[in-house]
Amino acid sequence: MSELRKDPITGRWVIISTDRRKRPHDFRLESVQILPDPSCPFCEGHELMTPREILSYRQQGSPNLPGWDVRVIPNQFPVLRVEGTLDRQGEGLFDRMNGIGAHEVVIESPRHDDSLATMSEAAVEQVLWACRERVRDLKQDRRFRYIIIFKNHGTAAGSSLDHPHSQLIALPIVPREVRDEVEGARAHYVVKERCVFCDVIRQETADGRRLIAETADMVALAPYAPRFPFETWIFPRRHEALFEDAPRQEIASLARLLGDMLRRMNRVLRNPPYNLLIHSAPLAEPSGDFYHWHVEIIPKLTKVAGFEWATGFYVNPTSPEEASQVLRDVRG
Amino acid sequence: MSELRKDPITGRWVIISTDRRKRPHDFRLESVQILPDPSCPFCEGHELMTPREILSYRQQGSPNLPGWDVRVIPNQFPVLRVEGTLDRQGEGLFDRMNGIGAHEVVIESPRHDDSLATMSEAAVEQVLWACRERVRDLKQDRRFRYIIIFKNHGTAAGSSLDHPHSQLIALPIVPREVRDEVEGARAHYVVKERCVFCDVIRQETADGRRLIAETADMVALAPYAPRFPFETWIFPRRHEALFEDAPRQEIASLARLLGDMLRRMNRVLRNPPYNLLIHSAPLAEPSGDFYHWHVEIIPKLTKVAGFEWATGFYVNPTSPEEASQVLRDVRG
Repeated sequence: MSELRKDPITGRWVIISTDRRKRPHDFRLESVQILPDPSCPFCEGHELMTPREILSYRQQGSPNLPGWDVRVIPNQFPVLRVEGTLDRQGEGLFDRMNGIGAHEVVIESPRHDDSLATMSEAAVEQVLWACRERVRDLKQDRRFRYIIIFKNHGTAAGSSLDHPHSQLIALPIVPREVRDEVEGARAHYVVKERCVFCDVIRQETADGRRLIAETADMVALAPYAPRFPFETWIFPRRHEALFEDAPRQEIASLARLLGDMLRRMNRVLRNPPYNLLIHSAPLAEPSGDFYHWHVEIIPKLTKVAGFEWATGFYVNPTSPEEASQVLRDVRG
Repeated sequence: MSELRKDPITGRWVIISTDRRKRPHDFRLESVQILPDPSCPFCEGHELMTPREILSYRQQGSPNLPGWDVRVIPNQFPVLRVEGTLDRQGEGLFDRMNGIGAHEVVIESPRHDDSLATMSEAAVEQVLWACRERVRDLKQDRRFRYIIIFKNHGTAAGSSLDHPHSQLIALPIVPREVRDEVEGARAHYVVKERCVFCDVIRQETADGRRLIAETADMVALAPYAPRFPFETWIFPRRHEALFEDAPRQEIASLARLLGDMLRRMNRVLRNPPYNLLIHSAPLAEPSGDFYHWHVEIIPKLTKVAGFEWATGFYVNPTSPEEASQVLRDVRG
């Protein structure tokens, strides 16, 4: 029989559908293929094809020249722009403001065919550290309320360029899913005076059925009520609301576990497209006691049908117990 | 400059991106193609290939034989089943219940290559009336809290069978997006003692910039803060929370306007895949004063990237003013 499960943070119910049960080989897997592109603007040597860099970690050379390991640039087609004022306005019932924000691209490697799964731990750590550094800089702008850090890997996951990269979007509002997570965590804290994420980590590491892998600092698990097959969350064990306040040691530990998890997914799901998101607390809101930063990895194995996003009600054909067992049993 | 707009019902912010502005011919349109399928289980004459019908409107013949106009059957691969008890349980932090519900298919026409855009007004009215009748029956089961009525048209919108059909899913919970809409409408009512949807209809019909078409009973408009290009909502003018309480005249009026809107979209967007949802108030909750049933049509023109559903923050490259003008100016 299928099961309805409730996510303890957001209160979202999902169906774990046993009648439509799917194991890894049941999915029509769409492997990500990196095609060579001589005119890729993100490749080393093509620095002049992009806007001027905001940040780079480099072994040699000067800004906007070769020699870098990680490079952060403004998005050439930003969804929001830094210049201007918010100019909040009402229009009868409606509310609007100008599209003020920041939209940056983190080029993760000088090499076109690299990926977070194949790069060295030290290289992945540099990518994460560059994100952290950019957030710390952007949050000084008091107009911003939230910074989304995300990665679309593969065309099916929304990527338009093959060269490995992530994106940062700084927003003057807190997006709705983040708001729901924050409010759910706040409600738990009001009743229990405990962080709900810490509670989840404690229960899941003791229980073990949804635990995938762990290090001294970080834990990777399949959530109890996942929206998608093989959805995976990575938490720091230590309570901390803000990703950008994570110490170097935790970022290094995340780099190791992230590479490990992506390699496991590549084996089991044959280089799937995926989305990766870093969830951190809203800027300039007191949520330190009850929010807990984490990473969500969602392989793109199923088509999200209309009724799912329109109702927020997801049907998942793979139980998290089965997904975590498969990922646990494979070598990263 | 791009604009951030807030939906007055849910409070969701979207970006209307002028830098990435897209008019109809800018989308890589994927037209829906209906392919002949001699073994289609929904075609007239194939009644024995499906589970036994729950309801049919027919000019002749007996149940499960040819002669029908609309036919409702249980889904052969249901996400939820009617038999059993909910058996709500806790498991430490987590909550679960059995997958109790109903999952039905409304076969909209005996003809494989029909569609809501090409069928007669009377035929579309029968489809809507069949949905209404099924909801009135299903809601007698006190285990159900919400009934989703939806249609996935075309493979890209999640449909797996070409033959025209819609689906009903009765749930023992209220899904999250519905909950957000209801709570947003309640909050407006608490402050204003007015229905927020009625307020939107009044403002939009007076303003006209986002109005697409109207009849004596119904209004079609582009919402102020649409998540998707050419997203279209159809409202009854008369305040009513429940779709299943709509009188025959409004259902007939909806059939006319719905066919009209789908034909306009087919012209402008070349037979796009789309999702259609009927939003109605939760069952057995007092929301009659502030909720207002309506229909949402969402053509599938863009790929929803990971960060959009994961953050609930949508980037829309077509303003509703532009979309409604294009749809207004074409004949349905």
